[in-house]
Amino acid sequence: MPNVLDYGYVDLIETWGSDQAIIEAARMSTNKGFKGWPEDEKLLRYLWAHKHLTPFEMAGAIFELKAPICVFREWHRHRTQSYNELSARYTPLPDENYIPSIERLLQVNKQTNNKQATGQTQTRLSAENAQIWLDELQDLYNRAQVVYENGLNLGVAKELARLPVPVGRYSKMRASANLRNWLHFLDLRMTNQAMYEIRMYANAIFDTLNEIFPRTMVLFAETFQENNKT
Amino acid sequence: MPNVLDYGYVDLIETWGSDQAIIEAARMSTNKGFKGWPEDEKLLRYLWAHKHLTPFEMAGAIFELKAPICVFREWHRHRTQSYNELSARYTPLPDENYIPSIERLLQVNKQTNNKQATGQTQTRLSAENAQIWLDELQDLYNRAQVVYENGLNLGVAKELARLPVPVGRYSKMRASANLRNWLHFLDLRMTNQAMYEIRMYANAIFDTLNEIFPRTMVLFAETFQENNKT
Amino acid sequence: MPNVLDYGYVDLIETWGSDQAIIEAARMSTNKGFKGWPEDEKLLRYLWAHKHLTPFEMAGAIFELKAPICVFREWHRHRTQSYNELSARYTPLPDENYIPSIERLLQVNKQTNNKQATGQTQTRLSAENAQIWLDELQDLYNRAQVVYENGLNLGVAKELARLPVPVGRYSKMRASANLRNWLHFLDLRMTNQAMYEIRMYANAIFDTLNEIFPRTMVLFAETFQENNKT
Amino acid sequence: MPNVLDYGYVDLIETWGSDQAIIEAARMSTNKGFKGWPEDEKLLRYLWAHKHLTPFEMAGAIFELKAPICVFREWHRHRTQSYNELSARYTPLPDENYIPSIERLLQVNKQTNNKQATGQTQTRLSAENAQIWLDELQDLYNRAQVVYENGLNLGVAKELARLPVPVGRYSKMRASANLRNWLHFLDLRMTNQAMYEIRMYANAIFDTLNEIFPRTMVLFAETFQENNKT
Repeated sequence: MPNVLDYGYVDLIETWGSDQAIIEAARMSTNKGFKGWPEDEKLLRYLWAHKHLTPFEMAGAIFELKAPICVFREWHRHRTQSYNELSARYTPLPDENYIPSIERLLQVNKQTNNKQATGQTQTRLSAENAQIWLDELQDLYNRAQVVYENGLNLGVAKELARLPVPVGRYSKMRASANLRNWLHFLDLRMTNQAMYEIRMYANAIFDTLNEIFPRTMVLFAETFQENNKT
Repeated sequence: MPNVLDYGYVDLIETWGSDQAIIEAARMSTNKGFKGWPEDEKLLRYLWAHKHLTPFEMAGAIFELKAPICVFREWHRHRTQSYNELSARYTPLPDENYIPSIERLLQVNKQTNNKQATGQTQTRLSAENAQIWLDELQDLYNRAQVVYENGLNLGVAKELARLPVPVGRYSKMRASANLRNWLHFLDLRMTNQAMYEIRMYANAIFDTLNEIFPRTMVLFAETFQENNKT
Repeated sequence: MPNVLDYGYVDLIETWGSDQAIIEAARMSTNKGFKGWPEDEKLLRYLWAHKHLTPFEMAGAIFELKAPICVFREWHRHRTQSYNELSARYTPLPDENYIPSIERLLQVNKQTNNKQATGQTQTRLSAENAQIWLDELQDLYNRAQVVYENGLNLGVAKELARLPVPVGRYSKMRASANLRNWLHFLDLRMTNQAMYEIRMYANAIFDTLNEIFPRTMVLFAETFQENNKT
Repeated sequence: MPNVLDYGYVDLIETWGSDQAIIEAARMSTNKGFKGWPEDEKLLRYLWAHKHLTPFEMAGAIFELKAPICVFREWHRHRTQSYNELSARYTPLPDENYIPSIERLLQVNKQTNNKQATGQTQTRLSAENAQIWLDELQDLYNRAQVVYENGLNLGVAKELARLPVPVGRYSKMRASANLRNWLHFLDLRMTNQAMYEIRMYANAIFDTLNEIFPRTMVLFAETFQENNKT
């Protein structure tokens, strides 16, 4: 089970279909079946290259995921997945919060300065200041947890007591989608434009799907690299 | 593999998830897991009764289906399923056509006369006339096939040569959906309001799902009978 | 423009379709058109009562909404709506945070104690303690904003500087859906089971749609009251 | 109202949103609004080029369409549209059937021979044979209508009496989708790979949308031509 960030993970629950099942579904159109590998790699490549993507809906996967709320906020914009998430209305959220590494903070800073080259003055983040801010962040996480627990202890309803919880707090969910939709998710979330944190989850999902659907994933990877080369 | 109508069938290709997986998904909200049967039947019933239906999206099934085009025309209005169908653009459709039984023709006639009691004159269909019409129908099917083949032989493109093919012609497809969406399909297509032919397919799908997801299907069946009792 | 909670609002941007357009769409099935009101109220009622809901997809509405992040977290589970939201990756979130009223805190407390009557000991929230906690909450909001701004000033990337932002912080979005899907949203979010805060938004949306689609909304309201009477 | 094929049409019923509304929705992310044309054409182009497509969901259109059943069979695979169609279960289908032109038959023939150059022997369709086949097709249409009417007159239920109706028979529907989904439809159905008949409908829809959303459609057209140049 791949760990992601400081407390997160990507845990494969179940898959259905296979590279072969995709071929069988595609062959419905011509009233034929699977012929065998490597012969049918040609058809798989043709389907992918010409965006005949419905056969890729005949496979899929379910993952259990633990990630910061701000990552799930982006994730849930993918409206073709099914979600069941931990609910702060029903149970208090465990006190686990995302603290980025110094390296992550500094790496982003380069990108940021780059983008904002058009006139905006901005201090370049130093390693020292990064550590200072991370200490402030940890302190804020601690303080938020105190207010959260005070509310619960005083009898504030769970759904209101959560108001101070920061978007860096970890949550958990299961997410199900067919392979076509997982590939679309990866296509958007494995790029450099995607937030680093969600990219780490996308990469872990890619690695897992790569073991289950190797012939499809090699095609995806080719296209992805072609579209994202610098 | 259940046969349906004169040439049709419902063939289960694959399922994913289980009654237990539905409970596990639902328990994500409270950060707990599956406790065991029969204890968790209470939660399953609660989810179903209160329409907390997203956990039922964590299971699903893929079927291969053979049915008349007019049945698939209704089927494809269900936009939450994934489809791969035999295509007359790529391969000539086999010459198999739906001939209803005499009993089916007469049964419908009762319903029809009933509905049209408001002034519309209509001859009640006799068994004799039913047979006469079925002969005309078979004759038309034969004639349509001749025109279809003539077109193909003359060099008319497949996609145009199909124009004479009647909507009683059989086609084939694979259909994939999660369990929530299959249950919605069954809820609409197992009723007496649904066309008899699609109802036969829905019944066969119900029987198959009943073996795979017995605890969920018993809840569905209770609600369905409650909503459809006369 | 109806205000909701302390800083939120529901602002109608645009609608399409009408009660009449729903009738026209339904009459496609019989190759006829709109006959006039009140005559066609009978058909509208029939469609609604028998859940022939596709004609209600031929109308819709777009709203601009301002609400706390924890409300939008629930909202985004409705996967049939289209969303464009304020992004903390692109711009710092304004420092506006939801402070519930004392009445709201105490009202919830009754429900909570009620639900948890089965053995769990819980202090009943007093008005005094409610005020104490709201002060702690405001203090935490202030502290979170300081950490957020410190991060931005030090050069932490916006997407990371937001980590301390609490889920009580306001965000903004536009949401578009067809009428069928808005009615499903209202059906789930106007009930007592829904969180009070999202219910206030649902009520405001109901009032707005009521002016645009009066004949449809009266049918919705009848069913809703029937299903939610105590 | 553009006519399409021999009896079909594309009739715009309603639109919502505008090029400007797309910009306004996109600017939600940065908490800003519409700045004006031509200035904001740059942002529109950026959204389109980088596939930030959700703002294009904040506009849309509803069409009434008349087309052969085999065209609607392809159309209904687009699961993001809403449909209300003439139903042969409720009313007899008018006796209007698609007869392709000689030019259309011969044009397809070239493509077909081209594709099937790999060994398959096929008589090239002559204009004379095309006319012979069209006469056979018209004759089959006539005969199917006789069997259809005989069934209805004898008291066969409408839903069964339709079995002989050919897929060249015209049907009618309304279809609603947001602009993002219409553009996806056009992208697939305006190409040479699409069946000529559905392409004619796609072209008519393009022309209509071009008048309502001119700045968006010029971007679509650029990309489409780039992707489909020979």
